[in-house]
Parts: sequence; structure tokens; C-alpha cells
Amino acid sequence: MAKLVQCIPNFSEGRRVDVVRRIVDSIASEAEVKVVDYSMDVDHNRAVVTFVGPPQDVRRSIFAGTKAAVELIDLNKHKGGHPRVGSVDVIPIVPLQDISMAEAVALSREIGKDIADNLQLPVYFYEQSATMRHRTNLADVRKGGFEALRENGLIDGREPDLGPSKMHPTAGVTVVGARGPLIAFNVNLASNDMKAARAIAKKMRDIRDSGGGLQGVKAIAVYLKSRDIAQVSTNITLPHQASMYEVYSFVEREANAMGIEVLESELIGTIREESLLKAASEAMKLPNLTTKRVLDNWMR
Amino acid sequence: MAKLVQCIPNFSEGRRVDVVRRIVDSIASEAEVKVVDYSMDVDHNRAVVTFVGPPQDVRRSIFAGTKAAVELIDLNKHKGGHPRVGSVDVIPIVPLQDISMAEAVALSREIGKDIADNLQLPVYFYEQSATMRHRTNLADVRKGGFEALRENGLIDGREPDLGPSKMHPTAGVTVVGARGPLIAFNVNLASNDMKAARAIAKKMRDIRDSGGGLQGVKAIAVYLKSRDIAQVSTNITLPHQASMYEVYSFVEREANAMGIEVLESELIGTIREESLLKAASEAMKLPNLTTKRVLDNWMR
Repeated sequence: MAKLVQCIPNFSEGRRVDVVRRIVDSIASEAEVKVVDYSMDVDHNRAVVTFVGPPQDVRRSIFAGTKAAVELIDLNKHKGGHPRVGSVDVIPIVPLQDISMAEAVALSREIGKDIADNLQLPVYFYEQSATMRHRTNLADVRKGGFEALRENGLIDGREPDLGPSKMHPTAGVTVVGARGPLIAFNVNLASNDMKAARAIAKKMRDIRDSGGGLQGVKAIAVYLKSRDIAQVSTNITLPHQASMYEVYSFVEREANAMGIEVLESELIGTIREESLLKAASEAMKLPNLTTKRVLDNWMR
Repeated sequence: MAKLVQCIPNFSEGRRVDVVRRIVDSIASEAEVKVVDYSMDVDHNRAVVTFVGPPQDVRRSIFAGTKAAVELIDLNKHKGGHPRVGSVDVIPIVPLQDISMAEAVALSREIGKDIADNLQLPVYFYEQSATMRHRTNLADVRKGGFEALRENGLIDGREPDLGPSKMHPTAGVTVVGARGPLIAFNVNLASNDMKAARAIAKKMRDIRDSGGGLQGVKAIAVYLKSRDIAQVSTNITLPHQASMYEVYSFVEREANAMGIEVLESELIGTIREESLLKAASEAMKLPNLTTKRVLDNWMR
């Protein structure tokens, strides 16, 4: 089997369709790379692109996409509901097939070096690629956002791993790293009650931190201005432990207890089949729902 | 692509493991055939085998399995919670890949002829293969079960489509036909209240018949003696319309209204990926959950 990695860059642009299209086109310019999905969110003001390919093709592809985004997105003019530090906010690399995490880390270092050397963009490594313990967690690297970096400079422990010692004037900085698969999953409330959404997100973090469930689930509250609703935005970083359904049903139960309905949920990017099976299995108390049960897997 | 059909024979034996193994081994003797799954249920006293393969391989395979079952299962000694008319109770053929329903019907006729000519087993054609309108629905063909056929004979409109005019002394009759995919899905109550299970199953049929939902869902109540619990046993025959989750949540809601919890649910055999996505989508109010979102589909 061929080595395959997945790359899920997050760009700080969710409103100008033409800009996102040009970035996606740049990424898709490598023949061996397949763009699986991209989504734009007007309130997050953010686009998430999911693509897969052989490691060195992905390396060229993400460099082209980053170059386009640095040229097209000015963070000084950016407003949105989601934390961010760069026009290319974060570049996660996920080992997908026939490739180790160590190889994915090595690939992330090459990608970071390409960007730092050629685009004058300071690079931080996070997750498995982190060079310092306090840079493992993206939320810590991103603390205060673009504005704090612009105001304070890249000093006092915020010196980048690679690249210039000052942030790019329009594109900020970027964060690159290899990580395991995660599920980006949001639950929208049928309410604009941000106090409720914040309380639910905090309760989820507290339960996680106390070991009582929702293991590996990161949750924040985001206001979706265009729709005037509150969202609980999550990353499920240990999909073998917590499922989309655990997250969904937790938010639904908590919201209902406050007299609020769930409007809908939202998957950003992709999900592994086993995670889908886990969610369906929990939603219907249906044990033994394995890939073997999916008839399509016997047809290929 | 190669022509592929799925065959899901139901055998009236769910207790003697050695018997079921011998039947499954007979089916698996054709090299091109893959046995995807088989399950035994001690209370239904029934085994369901799921296998796939090219049409003529499946034809030889199901003949071998039927021959073994006719030799090994005596319906006169059979007791179980599920309706049945034969040792090989029903042989559904489902077109899977690169094959039309018309071809699957033609295949079912060949299979029926093999069995009638060589095993002295009367054969009825049902579903898409039915030769008479009132034989379309399996429940009608099976009315009264083995015992009614043994007592009354194959007369008064119950003359078989092929084979002897008297039922096989130990194996009864069999029902063969091509049909679309269905989901065999059971919901077990945490209760032995068969009155409740029957009421739920009846309400499901009434709602279906009135066009108010649960389209194409067949539901009966079955008592699971070994576990002393009541089951709502369903076939979801229009999986594009009703999902596993619609069935599950309906049973759960009705049971809860009677103060009864759902213990668990159970999938017999296999499910198509699109049906799984539909169920997960409904369970989490998650629109746009398409096969494209399943990362595994980009890896093959």
C-alpha cells in the first residue's frame, strides 16, 4: 500500500468564496493529491480544507496553498468568532496509511521549514511535533490570538520554532504539526443564549478533566452572528474514547435541562468509518456494529 | 466491475452450532463466494447467513447450503419464536453490483429450479420473483407456518410454483426471491411485557399503513425465552425512507411512555454504508453526512 497522509489546513477566511477557491485550487494543483472536502463558515470566518495524498505531494500542495493564503488574506482586517493567529492558522498532518507518526512528524518539519524559509512566516510546531511541552496544545499556542502577538511581539517564550523573529505583517504566524485523527464536530443550539453555550462547554471541559467522560473532547462556545445562534464547537481528539454521539447527547441533555433545543449538528471535514460506527452504535445501543457489517466493504 | 449478488438465506436452526457450521461450510465451498456474516438466535431458533459472490457461484453455493440444511434440520422437531415454513425458510437474492433486478429475478428462478428438481422441496417465489400478487409479501406466503401446511396440504391456492405437490416430510417448503436490500433490525426491551411489544409493533404497522412514517417497516413482537425479554423484530424494506434510527427511536419513545426501557438493539447481517449514514445523520441531527465524508472511502 502507498503511504498516505491527510492534511487539514485551517485558513482565516470564511466569507470571500473566490479567495477560498483560489487556495483550494492551489492545493489541488498536485496530481496525486485529492481534495476530499472544504467548508467555509461565515461566522467563524474560517475555511477548513481536507486533502489526502503521498507525503511529498502533500508537502508541495500545502506549500502552494499557504503561499496563496499569505498573499490573499490580511489578518489585520479579519474578524470572526473562532480563535486564530494566522492567515494559515493551523496545518495538521495526520498519518493515514502505511506511515508512522514519526514519519508524519518529520514531514511536518519539512513543511514548516518550506514555509519559514520561503514565505517569511514564523512557524510553531504543535501536538506530536511540539518542541516544547507547553506548545503541545493548540489553544496554548494560540492564546490571545493574532492581536496579542501583534501587540506584544514574539517574545517571552513565544519565540517561533522556525522563521523570522517578527510576525508576518498581514499573515501573522502559523502552527504546524502531526497529530492523530480528530473529529471536528459542532452542535448548534436553537437559541442565542451564549451564557448557556459557555456553561455547557465549560461543563464538558470539567467532566473531561475530572475523568468522568468526554475524554479528549475540547469544547468552546462560539456565537454565530449571521444566524443569531449559539454553538458548542468541539474537537474530539480521542475518537476511540469519546464519540460524536457522546458529545451530541451531552449537549442535547444539558441544553434541554435549560429549556433549550438542539437545532442541528455539523461535521467539519471527514470522519473515519470506525468513528461513524461507534456513534451509530451508541445512538442505538447497538453493540457489534463493526466494519465487517458494512456491506460496501465487501464490494471493493 | 464484476456482477455481484448478495444472498441471505434463513435456516430454521439457531441452537445446534455444529449444524449451522456445516451449512455455512457448504455455502463457503465455492471459491468466489465470501461469507460476510452469520448469526444464530436461540429464541428465534434460526440462523441467518449473509454471503456475496458472482451470480452463478452464488447459485451453486446456495444449492449446497440448502442440500445440507434439508439433510440436517427436521422441522417437525423445531420450535422457535419466529414464523417459518421450511428448514431453509427463505432465500432472498439482492442485486449488489453491476446487475439488474431482472437478472436477479432470473437467478432466483434458476435457484428455485435447482432446489425443486433435485431436493424434492416445493418452492414458492416471493417479492420481485412472485408469480402471483398475493405471494409478494413473505408474511402471506408463510401464513400459519409449517404446521398449517403439514395439516392442510399445499392446496386451495397454496400450490407451490415449482417442485412436488406435497411438502418435504422434514424440510417443509422454501421461499425464494429477488428483492431490494433490507435491514433486519431488532430492538430488545428491558422487560418481558409481550403485550407492550405487541402494541408497539402494531402501532408501527398502523403508522406505516396510514402513511405517517416508518414507510416499508415490517414489525412483529417476538418473545426471547432464553432471556425472558420481549423484542420488537423489524425488517426495514425501504432503507432510503425509514432508517434504523427512526425505528429505534420510535420503539424507545413508545416503550418509555409505558415505563419500559430499551435494553439494546441488534442488526442481523449487514447494512449498506448509506443506511448507516442516514441513521447517524438522524440520531445527531447532522445533515450532509455523505459517503464523501467517510475518509476510508478515499484510501482504497
